[in-house]
Amino acid sequence: MTLTQDVQATILRLRREVSALHAELTRYELVVWTAGNVSARVPGADMMVIKPSGVSYDDLTPENMVVTDLDGAVLEGDLAPSSDTAAQAYVYRHLPEVGGVVHTHSTYATAWAARAEPIPCVLTMMADEFGGEIPVGPFALIGDDSIGRGIVDTLRDSNSPAVLMQNHGVFAIGKDARSAVKAAVMCEEVARTTHIARQLGEPVPIPPDQIASLFDRYQNAYGQ
Amino acid sequence: MTLTQDVQATILRLRREVSALHAELTRYELVVWTAGNVSARVPGADMMVIKPSGVSYDDLTPENMVVTDLDGAVLEGDLAPSSDTAAQAYVYRHLPEVGGVVHTHSTYATAWAARAEPIPCVLTMMADEFGGEIPVGPFALIGDDSIGRGIVDTLRDSNSPAVLMQNHGVFAIGKDARSAVKAAVMCEEVARTTHIARQLGEPVPIPPDQIASLFDRYQNAYGQ
Amino acid sequence: MTLTQDVQATILRLRREVSALHAELTRYELVVWTAGNVSARVPGADMMVIKPSGVSYDDLTPENMVVTDLDGAVLEGDLAPSSDTAAQAYVYRHLPEVGGVVHTHSTYATAWAARAEPIPCVLTMMADEFGGEIPVGPFALIGDDSIGRGIVDTLRDSNSPAVLMQNHGVFAIGKDARSAVKAAVMCEEVARTTHIARQLGEPVPIPPDQIASLFDRYQNAYGQ
Amino acid sequence: MTLTQDVQATILRLRREVSALHAELTRYELVVWTAGNVSARVPGADMMVIKPSGVSYDDLTPENMVVTDLDGAVLEGDLAPSSDTAAQAYVYRHLPEVGGVVHTHSTYATAWAARAEPIPCVLTMMADEFGGEIPVGPFALIGDDSIGRGIVDTLRDSNSPAVLMQNHGVFAIGKDARSAVKAAVMCEEVARTTHIARQLGEPVPIPPDQIASLFDRYQNAYGQ
Repeated sequence: MTLTQDVQATILRLRREVSALHAELTRYELVVWTAGNVSARVPGADMMVIKPSGVSYDDLTPENMVVTDLDGAVLEGDLAPSSDTAAQAYVYRHLPEVGGVVHTHSTYATAWAARAEPIPCVLTMMADEFGGEIPVGPFALIGDDSIGRGIVDTLRDSNSPAVLMQNHGVFAIGKDARSAVKAAVMCEEVARTTHIARQLGEPVPIPPDQIASLFDRYQNAYGQ
Repeated sequence: MTLTQDVQATILRLRREVSALHAELTRYELVVWTAGNVSARVPGADMMVIKPSGVSYDDLTPENMVVTDLDGAVLEGDLAPSSDTAAQAYVYRHLPEVGGVVHTHSTYATAWAARAEPIPCVLTMMADEFGGEIPVGPFALIGDDSIGRGIVDTLRDSNSPAVLMQNHGVFAIGKDARSAVKAAVMCEEVARTTHIARQLGEPVPIPPDQIASLFDRYQNAYGQ
Repeated sequence: MTLTQDVQATILRLRREVSALHAELTRYELVVWTAGNVSARVPGADMMVIKPSGVSYDDLTPENMVVTDLDGAVLEGDLAPSSDTAAQAYVYRHLPEVGGVVHTHSTYATAWAARAEPIPCVLTMMADEFGGEIPVGPFALIGDDSIGRGIVDTLRDSNSPAVLMQNHGVFAIGKDARSAVKAAVMCEEVARTTHIARQLGEPVPIPPDQIASLFDRYQNAYGQ
Repeated sequence: MTLTQDVQATILRLRREVSALHAELTRYELVVWTAGNVSARVPGADMMVIKPSGVSYDDLTPENMVVTDLDGAVLEGDLAPSSDTAAQAYVYRHLPEVGGVVHTHSTYATAWAARAEPIPCVLTMMADEFGGEIPVGPFALIGDDSIGRGIVDTLRDSNSPAVLMQNHGVFAIGKDARSAVKAAVMCEEVARTTHIARQLGEPVPIPPDQIASLFDRYQNAYGQ
């Protein structure tokens, strides 16, 4: 396959970006050892850039990121891609607005996932970011399209950019890799705060119309 | 508006101070991503210095802090100010002794806020700093004066320099920005310790006169 | 007072040691802001070296440590000593084998202290270090000898080098400042692990003779 | 004893590796002060390389690692070896496939150990790494072969590379020291997540055949 110069330049940029974003996963302690990864779609090509499998976060470089097609076949790279490549490729094939995917087993979110319990929306920060509860996806084994399909089927009808895959962990999406990382960070934050709130009683619910109002404002007016 | 040289020098100093104080929010893990901010009143002028909206803590500099008037209108700065500017400006307008305001969603304090439960005073450290319980303010949506009014109405009759806004998070005040940051740090500390104490039973109450005695000594005799 | 050269050299060494040991309190997150301190007795003189009051851990230097006599009166130093100086001086006056004292409000230990509940000995590590439970001392206000007397009366009959002062926090002692810091670190460690064990059921007790055997071996045979 | 050049070179490599791997124990907060250690078998010789006793992690160097025979007698080194040397030597003598052993008192795993409760397998990550529950070994005092025998007897019939020694802590094994460190890191991770999941209800079980399938794939297909 011959790539245009534009696509080549985009891949170089995304290699740097995807490699660097893993530092946010370790900064916020969403991952241990090698158990989590970031990928980015290559805009204008049916390709994605993803972490190599089983490589320490300390050893990630733009050069050792792996480029695959959207079926997960390696196009560039000496290392095998993340074992979550098939799931993430499925997401890119079926959700065209998604430009980045992140997978973690962050502690509190995964605890909700182990109970197959969605995280209720009792924080204004959660209304802002998730527009309601964070839903639970099915139990699914690795090795075919089950995980990818579970992610897509769960998120398609939700405001939430994150899903708790049952007994497994978090998949978060965004318009680009940085947005997906932000969703993974905020998912753990609200999972933790809501867990701790629940330990000593019942949080006060937020009325659905207020959740909708917060979500609408934040998605359209926050930031620069 | 022409500023006196004194006010110009004060603004320069406060740009440095406010920018630098955000490092205390990350050091004590009171914030993730961009979810928290510090502001300072400009003494001698109806102005405040505040964090820009949605900018990473790593990227804060004295230069990109935003200067607004006390209605939140931008006077200096290329970036939009924090989305909490209106609330903090309200505080400065109505509590003239306040020189700094901090907003966080720190985990344990926000968990108490999600249950709309004040933090009881069962620690000598809390008697020292807060002089009693940390109160809960109303549920309030962003966009008008509801949050600012909720903060002011709650803190006006309290010894506490911090309020837990229901379902939302912490607003802390002080005679300057550094004092407000200290109040935010200590609020999370006592929220966490009291939560953990309560997990395995009931803490021993401290009699109100002892709380008053500790508060009085600390406010008047501690430090240099 | 004229000091011998030996005592002067010892004070210089202890200024460096006490200043540096505060980095262990922050490393293990036993303290926030300025809420904890280390002191050391000056062997061969009725003097102690202690942290100045209300100074940030980042700003501690050998030079700004304060030297006091064993009634807490300042002998060397431009800054006021820690507000815990009287309590620590009392310990040095009444327990001649103690060469170092540490005070913290570390989270889990202080949670036990808030419930006035001693930490039971259900971990071999705790048998090694504490030789039984970590006891609770009385509620005592700052300002006279109440805290010092509470520490001494509680620890005099205990194997434990740490006491949980009710509603307050931890005082730890040792043959020197480093040993006292170790006791403070291990106190929080066993307070946390025992708390977490208790959250989901009852820990298995360790028979008293086994605790005695572990304590004896560790105190006499561990390390270099 | 005269060592071949090959064995001498291996020992030099393992001194560097064992010394450096302790940084993973501190990075993931599995240890405080000096309470945990790593060892490696010297392939091709009845020898092991282990941390010296009671030395701070900051002060570890390849040169101060201790080389012992598989009865724990010191062959090279000026310092006494870890007080866990006898237990780890027992493991190397009785489990020939083991090339590395790690001991920690990591918080959540030790909390399960204090209740003598195995960690149930309710996370896909745990199925991957441990192939079922993490078992509990007997209460055993230091000083003879009780700890080593407890480790070996418990792990011999388990998929798990980690054992929770009752009231004590974690011993983890691997084909080399790095694998054993990974097992110790993942043991704490699943101990924590499962604890937190259990705090608010019952996790959903994973059927045994799915655990077997996940374990088989991960052991044979993950990584590079």
